[in-house]
Amino acid sequence: MTPKYANVSEREQEPPSLAISTVIFALRPDPETGRLSLWLPLVRRIRQPYRELWALPGGPLRPSESLQDAAARNLQDTTGLSPRYLEQLYAFGGPDRSPTPRVVSIVYWALVQPDEAALARQDENVDWFRADAVGTLAFDHNRIIDYALWRLRNKMEYGSIAYAFLGATFTLAQVREVYEAVLGRELDPANFRRQLQATQDIERTDSFLQGGRHRPPRLYRYTGPELQSDAFPPA
Amino acid sequence: MTPKYANVSEREQEPPSLAISTVIFALRPDPETGRLSLWLPLVRRIRQPYRELWALPGGPLRPSESLQDAAARNLQDTTGLSPRYLEQLYAFGGPDRSPTPRVVSIVYWALVQPDEAALARQDENVDWFRADAVGTLAFDHNRIIDYALWRLRNKMEYGSIAYAFLGATFTLAQVREVYEAVLGRELDPANFRRQLQATQDIERTDSFLQGGRHRPPRLYRYTGPELQSDAFPPA
Repeated sequence: MTPKYANVSEREQEPPSLAISTVIFALRPDPETGRLSLWLPLVRRIRQPYRELWALPGGPLRPSESLQDAAARNLQDTTGLSPRYLEQLYAFGGPDRSPTPRVVSIVYWALVQPDEAALARQDENVDWFRADAVGTLAFDHNRIIDYALWRLRNKMEYGSIAYAFLGATFTLAQVREVYEAVLGRELDPANFRRQLQATQDIERTDSFLQGGRHRPPRLYRYTGPELQSDAFPPA
Repeated sequence: MTPKYANVSEREQEPPSLAISTVIFALRPDPETGRLSLWLPLVRRIRQPYRELWALPGGPLRPSESLQDAAARNLQDTTGLSPRYLEQLYAFGGPDRSPTPRVVSIVYWALVQPDEAALARQDENVDWFRADAVGTLAFDHNRIIDYALWRLRNKMEYGSIAYAFLGATFTLAQVREVYEAVLGRELDPANFRRQLQATQDIERTDSFLQGGRHRPPRLYRYTGPELQSDAFPPA
């Protein structure tokens, strides 16, 4: 790494620049155990600083592009994904987060359903990692992922964000699998089922999961508040 | 207003600059009715663009200052306030939000308890407005306040943010007054009391509100999840 700026005070004279990054969470089966776990795609940096390290997908803001549009475009450009759930997460802008003059990153996060995740590009410079095993990333991207995981777990405990990972209908066991993957621990099926049925956020449908099973499980649908709770409301 | 840039394409060549703004909500009695309502301080712009219009308190990011520190300092400089509840709200960065080259504003919000609000500076260039009667503000600041109100109301319905407006202990009637002020409508006292007592987020204390009343009401305390739910967790 060859810093362009000799010292901190020289670096501080430059006005901060702006970047957009995205944390993309998807549930994928673990290749070893087959259990669902939380994964995210990272891109390999091909430039300094932090050349060769993995980083969150992102890039600059183009003229005449909104922040949300820039996030969606960067995401599409780097991974081929166009997630339905894409929301602003947080702005990171500490003075020491990059060896260059300060970069303020507006970070978006996307929650991706399995059918969407299957469309992601994968090559030598884009790969998926388990969220709890990303190694050392460029910049403060480990910290950003920690923050995103913390927000996701918070929202799971006090909100309905789990349903963003699921399709229009789902079984109660599928909801439990989402919780288990995100929280990283097993939950008691009977207790979980009882708690879930007590909430107002889902309702039974008259359909059952298709398949060869003897007693196919019932499908439910989400009826609670808008999932992208922090997004600007439609005008 | 005399725009420095003759046309959109000239304006777009400049890289975006960065500003920090703050929405500060406090509950204050309405001078006419005496009922609690939601107020916020605004500052009068003394420079172009939008000179003479009211705007959210804010300013630039200084070298070596974190975003959160910049928000706290701007807030202190313009209003004299140092609120305990200060959290990042959202980044606004649409290409057309200012007649100047694009400004991306990282907006923080503060929820202020009555003892804090009483310390606010007030002069010809800083004044408090009812949140539902701010008039036409500079830039997209009306939209930012609409967004903050919407988030606040959402968090009141599905979270515990109301307690950020209250002290360490409070009566059930005080909680209802907060809800009424933020939601802008009256709530049935008996129903509200019953719902509140059913939540896990508050517990009875052995104290009662001091005062000359015949039957002083009981004080409660908040025991639910961390109120600044989006703030980065302490390391």
